[in-house]
Amino acid sequence: MKYSPINFKEKFTKFSECFSPKIIARMNDVHFKLGKFQGNFVWHSHEDTDEVFIVFEGTMRIDFRDGSVDLKAGEMFVVPKSVHHKPFAEKECKIMLVEPAGTINTGNSGGDLTAEDNVWI
Amino acid sequence: MKYSPINFKEKFTKFSECFSPKIIARMNDVHFKLGKFQGNFVWHSHEDTDEVFIVFEGTMRIDFRDGSVDLKAGEMFVVPKSVHHKPFAEKECKIMLVEPAGTINTGNSGGDLTAEDNVWI
Repeated sequence: MKYSPINFKEKFTKFSECFSPKIIARMNDVHFKLGKFQGNFVWHSHEDTDEVFIVFEGTMRIDFRDGSVDLKAGEMFVVPKSVHHKPFAEKECKIMLVEPAGTINTGNSGGDLTAEDNVWI
Repeated sequence: MKYSPINFKEKFTKFSECFSPKIIARMNDVHFKLGKFQGNFVWHSHEDTDEVFIVFEGTMRIDFRDGSVDLKAGEMFVVPKSVHHKPFAEKECKIMLVEPAGTINTGNSGGDLTAEDNVWI
């Protein structure tokens, strides 16, 4: 039997909206989500979990209260639990988030950019 | 303050041995490990956890008792908990593993290819 791999490029063709990560895989209680980021996201934090950003295409920045990190394709960053952060991308940036199932994109901030947290593609 | 991203290419320059994954990041209790695979690994399973393979460069195959999956750069696969598998790469393949801290590369099989499970680069 031939099993099928998960192909990132193919998965990115399945959605277009920004700041609305889609689940592509699960490892134990951890979700792997693809996202397209463009513009300013909201300041927020996740009180119960670290959050991993992996950039596949483009560039983005994550602002913190005391600084920032610039990320480009082939780079990752772990935002520690409870650290306030605000993602930003001038142009569309394709990323993968790795975080526990049920993690809400806007953390404890809520608002219009809050996305469904359980959409598989 | 400028925080530093984790750059995969730069991290891959820091080791050369095959089948000896090195830790580059931690999210909660999950380790992100880079590995260089070439040749046949051993049949094994992980009784307590799923295991994620993400291919950055090259190609590899994972054999199962009932089939196989071919992976190339830009693809991932989740090997379910307790499923016997044997990674293989004809030429050097650069990958990232995502799995709980403490996961042993040879699972419950042991043997000469068992690597240290706690080496950071």
